[in-house]
Amino acid sequence: MTSVQDRSAVVLLSGGLDSATVLAIAVAEGFQCHALSFRYGQRHLEELEAAKQVAKQLGTAGHRMVDLDMRAIGGSALTDDIDVPKDRDDVEMTTGIPVTYVPARNTIFLSYALGYAEVIECRDIFIGVNAVDYSGYPDCRPEFIQSFETTANLGTKMGVDGKSAIRIHAPLVNLTKAEIIRRGIELSVDYSLTRTCYDPDEKGSACGRCDACLLRLKGFEDNEMADPAPYQA
Amino acid sequence: MTSVQDRSAVVLLSGGLDSATVLAIAVAEGFQCHALSFRYGQRHLEELEAAKQVAKQLGTAGHRMVDLDMRAIGGSALTDDIDVPKDRDDVEMTTGIPVTYVPARNTIFLSYALGYAEVIECRDIFIGVNAVDYSGYPDCRPEFIQSFETTANLGTKMGVDGKSAIRIHAPLVNLTKAEIIRRGIELSVDYSLTRTCYDPDEKGSACGRCDACLLRLKGFEDNEMADPAPYQA
Repeated sequence: MTSVQDRSAVVLLSGGLDSATVLAIAVAEGFQCHALSFRYGQRHLEELEAAKQVAKQLGTAGHRMVDLDMRAIGGSALTDDIDVPKDRDDVEMTTGIPVTYVPARNTIFLSYALGYAEVIECRDIFIGVNAVDYSGYPDCRPEFIQSFETTANLGTKMGVDGKSAIRIHAPLVNLTKAEIIRRGIELSVDYSLTRTCYDPDEKGSACGRCDACLLRLKGFEDNEMADPAPYQA
Repeated sequence: MTSVQDRSAVVLLSGGLDSATVLAIAVAEGFQCHALSFRYGQRHLEELEAAKQVAKQLGTAGHRMVDLDMRAIGGSALTDDIDVPKDRDDVEMTTGIPVTYVPARNTIFLSYALGYAEVIECRDIFIGVNAVDYSGYPDCRPEFIQSFETTANLGTKMGVDGKSAIRIHAPLVNLTKAEIIRRGIELSVDYSLTRTCYDPDEKGSACGRCDACLLRLKGFEDNEMADPAPYQA
């Protein structure tokens, strides 16, 4: 087993805007960050290339890429051949659970992060979930994160060893997209490296029309900034 | 999304004695069972062959094999090059957490089962954890299972839809190995198909000396039966 410093953390890093900001926050809080990304059958692998670039820009103690066989279970527009919805308005976006929801994805990601954290002997895990913009995703809510933390402390060797508890940090959970971007800019996140779009073209340029793009664009607009990431013409 | 009958369940099936018994119990309770097995970098793949045979013997609505990249996180005698302990007595076996503990394994397995259950629209998940013999594994305790169930109901679309709750069934959790075997025999489980050993030879014959073998052998002995599985000469 690798031993790491006391202040180390596992950070879930997707290559998107939110997780990049979370990594910057964890670094700013003084954690040695071990980034973890997943190849889970997502349709666009440029997310993972973005994750590598982001890890490099912000500085990590390591970055692991894990293969997760999510297509074997299917059930989402992000992993199956289901159309990604476009041009939805605020009401449509915040009503119900979108088809881009991937069943139990954050539970699976956090479980993996937990296993990895245990192996490298660290008790802090960071995840970029957000309950404001993603109100339709049940696994982005604070009550889910809190419950997972309880489960983690009951279900692991380090959770029951009587030392300090495992903590799941979700520093973006109650922020708006505009607030997230503001925080990231303060921490020098290079958002041109991040990828958010659910349906990019072959070059990785964003569609500008899916829920994720619309939320992201509005977040920059609210900050009176242009999004530096590439969009389709 | 595939639609299945109301009384369907996802059953975690390892190919070992416990999960075979759980599958038999779920079948006997009238569930249409969807077995789920993992290739997670375990050193001995004959477990998975055993899982296939068991699924066939007991009858399932389907059996999925999922690739899980656990070696990427490492940390266990079952997935790393750490020696499996042999010939331990009762005190040694029940003191502390063994090196065969795989970090967060059951959390990861249950998360996957949860995702799959959501895709096939079923709310019942069966797992063969046991807190009597495996007192050293934190993720085999009832409080962990209960907490995971709470998390599952908070973190999934079906958990928040107001219909019946997701249930994690752990029917073996408080049984001794002898009781588990007795129950399985009543339900016609063919234990010659199951594989339990942490360190089998190339032919899949059990060592008879690791913790798992010792517990299993004692379970049959307590029932005044011979274990029908193959052991090394």
